[in-house]
Amino acid sequence: MDYFSHYGIAKAGDLIELASTQVKYFIFELKPGEEFHTHRGIVKHDDMIGKPYGSVIESHKGSLFYLFQPGITELVQTTKRNTQIMYPKDIGYILLRLNIKPGSRVIEAGTGSGGLTQVLASYVGNEGQVFSYESREEMQNLARKNIARLALEDRVSFIIRDISAGFSQEGVDAVFLDLPNPYDLIQQVKEVLVPGGFFGALLPTTNQVIKLLIELERNDFVFIDVCEISLRFYQSNANKFRPVDRMVAHTGYLIFARSVIEKKGEDE
Amino acid sequence: MDYFSHYGIAKAGDLIELASTQVKYFIFELKPGEEFHTHRGIVKHDDMIGKPYGSVIESHKGSLFYLFQPGITELVQTTKRNTQIMYPKDIGYILLRLNIKPGSRVIEAGTGSGGLTQVLASYVGNEGQVFSYESREEMQNLARKNIARLALEDRVSFIIRDISAGFSQEGVDAVFLDLPNPYDLIQQVKEVLVPGGFFGALLPTTNQVIKLLIELERNDFVFIDVCEISLRFYQSNANKFRPVDRMVAHTGYLIFARSVIEKKGEDE
Amino acid sequence: MDYFSHYGIAKAGDLIELASTQVKYFIFELKPGEEFHTHRGIVKHDDMIGKPYGSVIESHKGSLFYLFQPGITELVQTTKRNTQIMYPKDIGYILLRLNIKPGSRVIEAGTGSGGLTQVLASYVGNEGQVFSYESREEMQNLARKNIARLALEDRVSFIIRDISAGFSQEGVDAVFLDLPNPYDLIQQVKEVLVPGGFFGALLPTTNQVIKLLIELERNDFVFIDVCEISLRFYQSNANKFRPVDRMVAHTGYLIFARSVIEKKGEDE
Amino acid sequence: MDYFSHYGIAKAGDLIELASTQVKYFIFELKPGEEFHTHRGIVKHDDMIGKPYGSVIESHKGSLFYLFQPGITELVQTTKRNTQIMYPKDIGYILLRLNIKPGSRVIEAGTGSGGLTQVLASYVGNEGQVFSYESREEMQNLARKNIARLALEDRVSFIIRDISAGFSQEGVDAVFLDLPNPYDLIQQVKEVLVPGGFFGALLPTTNQVIKLLIELERNDFVFIDVCEISLRFYQSNANKFRPVDRMVAHTGYLIFARSVIEKKGEDE
Repeated sequence: MDYFSHYGIAKAGDLIELASTQVKYFIFELKPGEEFHTHRGIVKHDDMIGKPYGSVIESHKGSLFYLFQPGITELVQTTKRNTQIMYPKDIGYILLRLNIKPGSRVIEAGTGSGGLTQVLASYVGNEGQVFSYESREEMQNLARKNIARLALEDRVSFIIRDISAGFSQEGVDAVFLDLPNPYDLIQQVKEVLVPGGFFGALLPTTNQVIKLLIELERNDFVFIDVCEISLRFYQSNANKFRPVDRMVAHTGYLIFARSVIEKKGEDE
Repeated sequence: MDYFSHYGIAKAGDLIELASTQVKYFIFELKPGEEFHTHRGIVKHDDMIGKPYGSVIESHKGSLFYLFQPGITELVQTTKRNTQIMYPKDIGYILLRLNIKPGSRVIEAGTGSGGLTQVLASYVGNEGQVFSYESREEMQNLARKNIARLALEDRVSFIIRDISAGFSQEGVDAVFLDLPNPYDLIQQVKEVLVPGGFFGALLPTTNQVIKLLIELERNDFVFIDVCEISLRFYQSNANKFRPVDRMVAHTGYLIFARSVIEKKGEDE
Repeated sequence: MDYFSHYGIAKAGDLIELASTQVKYFIFELKPGEEFHTHRGIVKHDDMIGKPYGSVIESHKGSLFYLFQPGITELVQTTKRNTQIMYPKDIGYILLRLNIKPGSRVIEAGTGSGGLTQVLASYVGNEGQVFSYESREEMQNLARKNIARLALEDRVSFIIRDISAGFSQEGVDAVFLDLPNPYDLIQQVKEVLVPGGFFGALLPTTNQVIKLLIELERNDFVFIDVCEISLRFYQSNANKFRPVDRMVAHTGYLIFARSVIEKKGEDE
Repeated sequence: MDYFSHYGIAKAGDLIELASTQVKYFIFELKPGEEFHTHRGIVKHDDMIGKPYGSVIESHKGSLFYLFQPGITELVQTTKRNTQIMYPKDIGYILLRLNIKPGSRVIEAGTGSGGLTQVLASYVGNEGQVFSYESREEMQNLARKNIARLALEDRVSFIIRDISAGFSQEGVDAVFLDLPNPYDLIQQVKEVLVPGGFFGALLPTTNQVIKLLIELERNDFVFIDVCEISLRFYQSNANKFRPVDRMVAHTGYLIFARSVIEKKGEDE
């Protein structure tokens, strides 16, 4: 049972979102007797336990907050991090392109702070499994904590391993590489992917993409696709409806491909 | 058990993707004794049954195809349609923003051709449920067929109803409106959404967005967000790595908001 | 003779650009005996007078700068301002769409800080003329100074007038409106434009654009065009070639149209 | 005197634009006694001569057209071409970044169909000069005709030369390279540019940009800038204001840099 399983009334043990404005919200577990300190005053956990979600909560200074269950977007964006984190605009598209669904068995490397791990673990459901690789153990500790707060430990196998020696699973449905040198690991990916399986990667520079394209071709991957996603927000003001002034210009290039048993002669 | 549950060897009854190039693939069910006709020759189903996925399949004219299990992206893009269909770039982001996950109870209206319905049904898992509303029965027939080919009928309740009279569920986790006048239905959305629940809509014109913003404000929705997503593909050629020449300029504006019990005084 | 007329050796009276990095440059006039103070040390004007452009100049603290003649882009971007300034990405396109060239007679309103005025004055040449309208005299003082530093006063007529009463010229080639309510002034624009002449405007919000479209239609303007221009910079690093992290998401919508004597029946 | 010098009444010898809709217009010279044939009927030149610009003109089939003087944008977009032509969105920004103005002396290579040549010739005015290089004479014939129809021959020197042997001018203000291998010509550019002068190039692929960046660094160019410009049009419908469905995804990367006498030690 995950953090998401009950709506309605906030209970001790729930992971909640205390939100004031769109840019400022806090996600934490409700514990009887504890207090949550913000620069706009203290909120007692006991004042939230038993309240319906969607309620307004008042701090001791009179500041008002909304009591929410956190959405997956908010969880990803507030993930404690020691690395660059992936953005929801990219993650959502990756989910579809890698065909991640309840029951999927998927490898990701590296684990990083576990931002993507949380989403994968949510979407593979109880029947699926995420195998998350990292080379250094201390790097995975943060991701483990991030998964633990969602109570999704059962769905994630954290693995410390130099993957240039290969992955330890067989026949996974999808592999996603979020590390600087995916082009060095394509043979290993091919071995672990079920034929017809889905490969994806995120890379910041064109130089890296070019190297990866060469290796995907060399290893007979097909349907190789490169794209980038832009997300532009608008000021949600009905009288002055216009885009915001500034936006993220680049998070990374997304590369997708499918594995096959053999490559047919002429290929696009 | 859905179309996705077994990888490995193609079996009678499987939904398969027969792919030649990125822009041309066919998705159909394998049936012993049948033939599939393409302009590049005939492929016998019996030549595919028993083959491993990822294999190369030859037509009677010698054209080669790959035998795949279809990904959710390919399913959406080949959905038989009588309406404008949603794009994977938007659907992926909607999934995250509406917090759709295994176990979610979600309403969509209208059903349309069932492109989004397929994705929602895949992601809510066996524990979740999709309530898909449409005003005219004949419109839903195509969507029913599209869901049936994924064997996901159990997860979708198709409902014929004029939703200006309200929805028939209570306390759903999320509502997504893909119809021309969401601004006329916000009170109804508020009633059916659990407090703290997630609302989303897709609208092509700024005039519609402006009207919707007014109604969301009037009905005390909070964290109102408008955005648009652009997806640009690249030529996946390592020696000439560059964007493609043309792209989709607009599919629609995405609007998101959260429902609350009451609105706090000062709001962003 | 304008600031641009002599390349080669820096002389007293030249408008120069003292540049350290792309984001930090200073534009000022060389005057014998004076000093220029930066946080990286003092540079004597006499150390620059007589030096060839393109030279390296050293401050008394040993910091190095390049001695340049300023380009029009740098002039626009360092314009002293009391209002939002227009961006080169938009200005360049406006020049072409309004057909501004040596000899053009063009109206702009309002003057603002004179950023666009400088560009128009540069491009109309000695044979052309810019008529720059503003309602409040004190607003134009800054623009006058900005034009004076380019010695382009002869090309610009600064006019203080409430333009709802109409413009005082006849038969100008182009009109550009950079003010909040262009939709209130379309009849006046039509009267002052030569038939076949070019109209342009910049507006931040969709609400304003919608109002303007209505008025342009009502006043029989044709070939009405709305667009927006995005400019994305890249890190100019050959080993890590990639877009920068953040960019400007919106400066404004550009609207263009042409004036005609009468409108033909069926119109696009 | 150029094609632009008189507005008002259409005269024999004028270059005119006969426009029906935004996507369909014709540009040609008015000659007494001649006829212009369109699929919507014949228009007699004598029916246009003497008419004011901005008038409606009727074909013998009753179709209506507007009589305009062509703008520079329309001229570029209807340029007869044997090569890929540059887009106004890029040209406008190039003008500003290369500081092209009345009086500028500028080199472009290659000439191509003369699309950019026309704009440069318009903007350098009578006092400026464009030096347009091409390696094969037959390639320049079309550009010569395109310049001749604007009566701007005096402002353009067409030169046939292998520029790997260097340019024949000295101290030009700006150089723009629109050819596949600008990286092979940077030493030659440096020699012909006045110190402090402006360099620009347009390249379709990232591989080419990467090579160019290396050579610009090696030849001590500074303020190296790479960017790309997107232009998105909207449907100019006040009741359904929204972007058009499709757009140009890529024309090329723009690269700009400035030449200096020597490079200072630490550089950005």
